[in-house]
Amino acid sequence: MRTLYHHTLSPFARRIRLMLHEKKLPFDEVVQETWREDPAFLKINPAGDVPVLIDGESMTLTDDGVITEYLEDAYPDPPLIGRDPIRRAEARRLAALFDRDFFTEVTQLIAGELLIKRFVAQTAPDARILKDGRARLLEYLRQIGWLADRRSWLAGDDLSIADLTAGAHLSLIDYTGNVPWDDHPEAKAWYARLKSRPSFRCLLADSLPGIPPAPVYADLDF
Amino acid sequence: MRTLYHHTLSPFARRIRLMLHEKKLPFDEVVQETWREDPAFLKINPAGDVPVLIDGESMTLTDDGVITEYLEDAYPDPPLIGRDPIRRAEARRLAALFDRDFFTEVTQLIAGELLIKRFVAQTAPDARILKDGRARLLEYLRQIGWLADRRSWLAGDDLSIADLTAGAHLSLIDYTGNVPWDDHPEAKAWYARLKSRPSFRCLLADSLPGIPPAPVYADLDF
Repeated sequence: MRTLYHHTLSPFARRIRLMLHEKKLPFDEVVQETWREDPAFLKINPAGDVPVLIDGESMTLTDDGVITEYLEDAYPDPPLIGRDPIRRAEARRLAALFDRDFFTEVTQLIAGELLIKRFVAQTAPDARILKDGRARLLEYLRQIGWLADRRSWLAGDDLSIADLTAGAHLSLIDYTGNVPWDDHPEAKAWYARLKSRPSFRCLLADSLPGIPPAPVYADLDF
Repeated sequence: MRTLYHHTLSPFARRIRLMLHEKKLPFDEVVQETWREDPAFLKINPAGDVPVLIDGESMTLTDDGVITEYLEDAYPDPPLIGRDPIRRAEARRLAALFDRDFFTEVTQLIAGELLIKRFVAQTAPDARILKDGRARLLEYLRQIGWLADRRSWLAGDDLSIADLTAGAHLSLIDYTGNVPWDDHPEAKAWYARLKSRPSFRCLLADSLPGIPPAPVYADLDF
């Protein structure tokens, strides 16, 4: 028995979904609206956030970073962090860049205003915050393009948590139709390869009630 | 050649110092005052924070989490995260608890007010913030006591990053003399064992110019 508690609005849970599919680990899903009080869920995770992974009878894991490392330790094939210490450090460095910097500079600004505010609080987005998020997004698209131009995948020769983490965050921005892909052809080519992987299908099927994704979101030929 | 950029005020750098000593990896130290602009250091780490580890000719690592995992990958003996996936997850869970929750609820409040504010900004501490930090510290001391009563070390049978991370943060609070050890005998016994390890000597020798440590700080028989 393996169960993942997640929500489409959580980029951190999105990465875990991608990892589970890449490692071909079947799992049941529970979509958890973490902003609603749910005593049963708080018993499982007192912090109240997702992702939460229950793996087997007694293994309950919270904290997306802990879950990421656990999945790689417990199910090493295929490796998604890497095979040697230097490549593993590079994959983790880039994953941290997206989980920490991109999250606070872009995800929270664009997805926060256009999805979370609308869906959770039913309030209107702040145009200045959106503008700031869109400007900072460009820097990351340039950085992705620079890496994708020099390497097969962001951290090196193989797909890794660097790609899955970047894809998890970017897919949420793409849901809103706010990624200027055509101005960034190298980043677009990298994302097209990522998006066409079978593991990505689960994300592309997501739809928030009342806030459908932008047409580009699930289009593999965007 | 191995060089660590660190500062006594950084609990994250404190853990890396402990790890390097536990793994018996010799290193040169650079004490970096990260709040002063230093163009040479910003070239090494544009984010401007410590720890930064240079390992060998070309390996520059930033981000304390990345450095922690790299040290374990590259120098697995003795293991400080653990040997099997479940124990590794538990060690990482506890390390994250201290790095994220304890840091924002206790370290930033007590060490932030009594050390960082005084040393960096030369301003007086806010008594309400201090009181809040001291109250929250008690919850963690109870939690450490509960774990130490049931396990040899916080995450299980062996010393791990759980102990080193908790010790890194607590040592900074202890520097200010604000840990009520005598009310928490199990936590005190655990800390006494940690403090008497050779790896801990480097921390106990720390002293901030103008703000000497509380007498208890370097006392092994506290």
